[in-house]
Amino acid sequence: MIKIIIIGTGNLGTELCKGFERSNSCKLVGYFNRSNRKIDNLKAPLLENFNVVPACDIILLCTPDDVIATVSAALNTTAIVAHTSGSVALSAVSNHQQHGVFYLPQSFSSSRNVQFEDLIICLEASSNPVMEQLKILGSSLSRKHKHLDSMQRKRLHLAAVYANNFVNHCYLKTQELLEREQLDLAILEPLLRETLEKALAIGPLNAQTGPAKRSDFNTIETHKNMLETTDRDMYETITRSILKTYGTEL
Amino acid sequence: MIKIIIIGTGNLGTELCKGFERSNSCKLVGYFNRSNRKIDNLKAPLLENFNVVPACDIILLCTPDDVIATVSAALNTTAIVAHTSGSVALSAVSNHQQHGVFYLPQSFSSSRNVQFEDLIICLEASSNPVMEQLKILGSSLSRKHKHLDSMQRKRLHLAAVYANNFVNHCYLKTQELLEREQLDLAILEPLLRETLEKALAIGPLNAQTGPAKRSDFNTIETHKNMLETTDRDMYETITRSILKTYGTEL
Repeated sequence: MIKIIIIGTGNLGTELCKGFERSNSCKLVGYFNRSNRKIDNLKAPLLENFNVVPACDIILLCTPDDVIATVSAALNTTAIVAHTSGSVALSAVSNHQQHGVFYLPQSFSSSRNVQFEDLIICLEASSNPVMEQLKILGSSLSRKHKHLDSMQRKRLHLAAVYANNFVNHCYLKTQELLEREQLDLAILEPLLRETLEKALAIGPLNAQTGPAKRSDFNTIETHKNMLETTDRDMYETITRSILKTYGTEL
Repeated sequence: MIKIIIIGTGNLGTELCKGFERSNSCKLVGYFNRSNRKIDNLKAPLLENFNVVPACDIILLCTPDDVIATVSAALNTTAIVAHTSGSVALSAVSNHQQHGVFYLPQSFSSSRNVQFEDLIICLEASSNPVMEQLKILGSSLSRKHKHLDSMQRKRLHLAAVYANNFVNHCYLKTQELLEREQLDLAILEPLLRETLEKALAIGPLNAQTGPAKRSDFNTIETHKNMLETTDRDMYETITRSILKTYGTEL
């Protein structure tokens, strides 16, 4: 049974602690965090002395991107050290002989329980034996995994910014417009669901509709006049990109 | 039983013909279209002589926005005439004594069967009796309806551009980035689903994560350098809008 330690218990680290503890195929030895804060409903202990790391097979770094290399450098261990970031290269943990990346392309929040089962866990490793260990660890959360090198993962992470951050911001703009008419986001829930299902079913290139797709400049003009400066910039820029995609340059 | 005629059989008109014919509470008398094209698997006849409109209670205009007023002006009838556009005002059909709007906030494609049941049908009418008739017609498709005036509907339609057109375009950019690394959109399907569910559950303002939300300018800079001109414009503009939302002006 793989023994694991987690360093960093933000949203991702906390969800991973819970996920590994639910699993029967690995053992969470304990977890570190900067503020020595105990996580509720976890059997594994909070570890407080960073100079004495208990024996384990894999240490997962779930810290913010910009401190991964620093934490890795300070860590005295012979275990596999893997980070969990989409945008940081494998080399950030290469001071350890056995090192790797264990990246979950999902958005984690304290208020939501994420299902790990369907996630494709993205793995990178310093050697085949390390990769095998990471696969076994991954299988305790999900049946799916994939090898991605640092460049592929970096591009995937940028894609995830569009898929999550930018899509969510479009949802926010939707909600703001509706609220001006005392309408709730729920009125468009069927549209939001169909938008996702259609894109998955026939691909976003075929799924596109709307004024920009059909070069309906009257409607585009009317819409722009309904928006204030920042929102108009965003409307114009996305519209220009859609026009370009379907062959109409502005 | 309400007798209905449809004018215009694009994606929306065709889906409505099928939806009304499936229903037991109204009768599709027939349908007109510009090219006299018969719709497959429909019992109701294609109507070809626009000067002789058969007796009916409601005529629904499902034509493009820019010809609604023209078609309405050419139509000789005493029935209720209602258009189905999100962005056109009620007044476009006001040459008829009984007139209204029957708007479905959904995206219709020939390749997809849309479920009407959960849609909130948005109604506007020239009088209470007309509104009652439109409600009865709406109930043949969905249990939900709502009265919206022309301004509310116009703003809802703009909101739907963000919810559908702009979100779908973000999906396209996601897919393009993945394809550069020979990855399929399916790798991010769990993220896309969680993005929607989280926004609906806790609201998009609380659901936002990512480099722009946490003012992580290093990652933003790295991302910008991975993109070409048009894509960089879009990345920058949406990022600026997120930064502004969470209090960081660039």
